[in-house]
Amino acid sequence: MRTLTVDLGERSYPIIIGRGLLNTAAEYLLQQSISNQSSLLLVTDDQVASLHLAPVLKSLEEAGFSVTVSIVKSGEQSKSLAVFEEVMTKAIEAGLDRNSAVLALGGGVVGDLAGFVAATYMRGIRFVQLPTTILAHDSSVGGKVAVNHPLAKNMIGAFHQPELVLYDVDTLKTLPDREVRAGYSEMIKHGLIWDASFAAWCLAHVTELLELQPEALAYGLEQGCAVKAMVVSQDERENGLRAILNLGHTIGHAIEAVAGYGEYVHGEAIAIGMIGSALIAVARGRDIQVYEDTRRLLKAFGLPVSLSPHVDTEQLIGALLHDKKFKNNKIVFVLPITVGQVEIVSDISLDEVRNAIGQLKREAI
Amino acid sequence: MRTLTVDLGERSYPIIIGRGLLNTAAEYLLQQSISNQSSLLLVTDDQVASLHLAPVLKSLEEAGFSVTVSIVKSGEQSKSLAVFEEVMTKAIEAGLDRNSAVLALGGGVVGDLAGFVAATYMRGIRFVQLPTTILAHDSSVGGKVAVNHPLAKNMIGAFHQPELVLYDVDTLKTLPDREVRAGYSEMIKHGLIWDASFAAWCLAHVTELLELQPEALAYGLEQGCAVKAMVVSQDERENGLRAILNLGHTIGHAIEAVAGYGEYVHGEAIAIGMIGSALIAVARGRDIQVYEDTRRLLKAFGLPVSLSPHVDTEQLIGALLHDKKFKNNKIVFVLPITVGQVEIVSDISLDEVRNAIGQLKREAI
Repeated sequence: MRTLTVDLGERSYPIIIGRGLLNTAAEYLLQQSISNQSSLLLVTDDQVASLHLAPVLKSLEEAGFSVTVSIVKSGEQSKSLAVFEEVMTKAIEAGLDRNSAVLALGGGVVGDLAGFVAATYMRGIRFVQLPTTILAHDSSVGGKVAVNHPLAKNMIGAFHQPELVLYDVDTLKTLPDREVRAGYSEMIKHGLIWDASFAAWCLAHVTELLELQPEALAYGLEQGCAVKAMVVSQDERENGLRAILNLGHTIGHAIEAVAGYGEYVHGEAIAIGMIGSALIAVARGRDIQVYEDTRRLLKAFGLPVSLSPHVDTEQLIGALLHDKKFKNNKIVFVLPITVGQVEIVSDISLDEVRNAIGQLKREAI
Repeated sequence: MRTLTVDLGERSYPIIIGRGLLNTAAEYLLQQSISNQSSLLLVTDDQVASLHLAPVLKSLEEAGFSVTVSIVKSGEQSKSLAVFEEVMTKAIEAGLDRNSAVLALGGGVVGDLAGFVAATYMRGIRFVQLPTTILAHDSSVGGKVAVNHPLAKNMIGAFHQPELVLYDVDTLKTLPDREVRAGYSEMIKHGLIWDASFAAWCLAHVTELLELQPEALAYGLEQGCAVKAMVVSQDERENGLRAILNLGHTIGHAIEAVAGYGEYVHGEAIAIGMIGSALIAVARGRDIQVYEDTRRLLKAFGLPVSLSPHVDTEQLIGALLHDKKFKNNKIVFVLPITVGQVEIVSDISLDEVRNAIGQLKREAI
């Protein structure tokens, strides 16, 4: 079992990574002073519920917790205001009070949705993450919670830190292969933005990671969480440094928005976005090596490194204009300098992005 | 012109009270470092827009601000998730970025709605209040923003402090008489919970206040804001002291919920709630004087001190069960000790509330 602390002063919290943790979930809640005197709301999706809900409920109910379960449909569509309102209704009907906690059992979608419920129910109650995907190693650290607006992803949200992240790596065994690969996209990103030796370790351990060998997996998750936790500790509300975590996300979010939150899953979209950022960096004079290294790493994990030509470039540009990173007619971009190091550049023009998208599409032909 | 600072460390902000301030609104924004380089969203309601929008827009546009206006229907119904989503759509279409501000021109409904948009758009942007009601002297201080859920008032919200409150008392002249009276309800509450001499001053100046004489009005607003600001400074997120501001609100919110957010306006509902709290206090052994003093003060302002018998008692009790102040099967209540002093009592039973409601109804016959 590995334990890591996200250091945020009085909002610090532990991330516990290990096998079989869901079977004793209640113990960890009680350790965090979450009392069984107030009702809990557990939010999960239909797929995760069928696989992992039973052991969590058993543990909680045996420990005297009163738990109401809200099951949403699996997929990005559940990050909507309509589903948010349904979960809120459940929370009210369940009689959650100021001491209650909302538990998110699932991946990034469930975490973001349940977290936004926790952030806004009675103006904020306690929140616990039980991630069941690799990708959630990223979203479960840092307190960014949100739902989507039809016009832009993650546009409606808050900063709301969990009190505990309980990461049972046994749940990852049930992930489909595509989700496994996509899940490593954010882990690779953490190497690319901060830690060249971790990036090299990822490349050297592709096989073990794709086979979900527990030791490599737990180490990779811990290191990925550690980079994120370090960045978030230094800049909780994204006034500066934290923006480096957006590597690949500007183009990535646009791809998700235009392709309809479905053709590409999140990890795939940001893999393409990271390639796009490398292309912009190279066009601005960086050594082509950074593009080649990024590409090799992502390709080794079977992640896409080009964009399907049918995705409309001008629609992508339109989506960028609604992005949070669009400011004063220029786009803020995170660009790689070399593996393990990035810079935040605030004067990227739409034409530079158009050129990069063109290259991403040609690559696919 | 009177200026008051709400002291919240790095989230401190000024409340400026005076005549004609809307005509020079842009100056005050610029003083708060709100730049005209980012778009603004101004949220108001149809009634306020017809009376007070033109001078604000003129001032802002002359100063080079790009302003998008979102006009919602007047009334509590606009504090819904559906209207919240509409305003969000406007904000996205207007291209608001992280440096943008949301301005609320109106009363408590507009302030709460626009504030929740500001709190959650891109996980939180700047917020400015331009109150146009007396009641808003209360809601514009303290950063509580929210929308209603069909099952409970203010259930979905956040703490999000404004950066500036600009209180143009000239706007109050256009208030209907009923809103004027109801507006004084929270001002009286601030005397009742904290400042007996201010409560006495209110009683001695009923005539000037109801006639909206500028000097009495500005003094009353300043003192009301000052009590609230002091309480909020000591306990921003309602972990303790801040709860005293809920005097009258537990029964008051239930009345609003059951009577359908309309038969009684907010100030009237909490006036009845304050009488209800006094009745519970007296039933628990406090001197009947506190009930009589509360009643005299509210009656002098023409506020209701009894409850229409057709409002169903058990429906009120049902609404209380969904209230944020219901915890471990008891209700937390703020009870008066004497004028200017209250206590927070956490063991009020439903029967005590039933009895008080019964008395409130008999009073009306």
